[in-house]
Amino acid sequence: MTRPSGFDPKSLPESNSTSYPEPYRDGGSNRWYRRVGDHAGLKNFGVNLTRIVPGGMSSQRHWHTKEDEFVYVLEGEATLVTDAGEEILKPGMCAGFPAGAANGHHFRNRTSKDVLLLVVGDRVREEECHYPDVDLRYGPDPDGKYGFTRKDGTPY
Amino acid sequence: MTRPSGFDPKSLPESNSTSYPEPYRDGGSNRWYRRVGDHAGLKNFGVNLTRIVPGGMSSQRHWHTKEDEFVYVLEGEATLVTDAGEEILKPGMCAGFPAGAANGHHFRNRTSKDVLLLVVGDRVREEECHYPDVDLRYGPDPDGKYGFTRKDGTPY
Repeated sequence: MTRPSGFDPKSLPESNSTSYPEPYRDGGSNRWYRRVGDHAGLKNFGVNLTRIVPGGMSSQRHWHTKEDEFVYVLEGEATLVTDAGEEILKPGMCAGFPAGAANGHHFRNRTSKDVLLLVVGDRVREEECHYPDVDLRYGPDPDGKYGFTRKDGTPY
Repeated sequence: MTRPSGFDPKSLPESNSTSYPEPYRDGGSNRWYRRVGDHAGLKNFGVNLTRIVPGGMSSQRHWHTKEDEFVYVLEGEATLVTDAGEEILKPGMCAGFPAGAANGHHFRNRTSKDVLLLVVGDRVREEECHYPDVDLRYGPDPDGKYGFTRKDGTPY
């Protein structure tokens, strides 16, 4: 890239695809994201513009063992859910989730308007991710291949 | 951290300190930053809320060899300066600077109101940084210690 240039992240295509296995794929249908960092050619961390429609959630509640995460609220009222309960983050507020902090988190939209988040996460090999509310785990299978399994390591 | 919680990054203390050697320290006095990622306990990447006062600039124009950088404009009109010239980024616009893209960049505030940026950069050991406009380089000295030197490697 010889010419870094500014762009409006809202101009990028939006997707609601998810890599969760069934029966957890449904949650993806009410959150949409744009791959902002990828568009800019970034590789060391990801930046997504995530839109949660009313009633939706950003992801299953989870925590990363090796990856840091950061979320800044751009529009709407986001409800942050953690082990401690719920709190509302208004536009201009943010939260960070350090790698290894064993407190599952996600964001819900309990309002009637879209919530727009800027979400940053670094990209670590051999990451494991834990999901306290559902029978789901991301990590290596017995062959060392990374992906989603049940908590006991068996495949979906 | 057992309780990730939301916060207003504007509530954090602001600093205009700089690690640049003289005669490049002056530029720091017109940009202020809050260490948002550090406050949240993040270690793998930094997140700063950077405020550039009228007439100021975010940093010397530079590019990183191993670190990605991402900037989102929250308030004001930011002028992005690269080898290609200048362009104006309004609130809601962003830009990314991939590691190794040899095109020095910085942001200037050519308006009469503050510019507020959310700035993300990962943290890589053995990083080198190049400054096309001034006799400055960040990298290892002959003893392998990292810091600022002149372009020829001699100390300030």
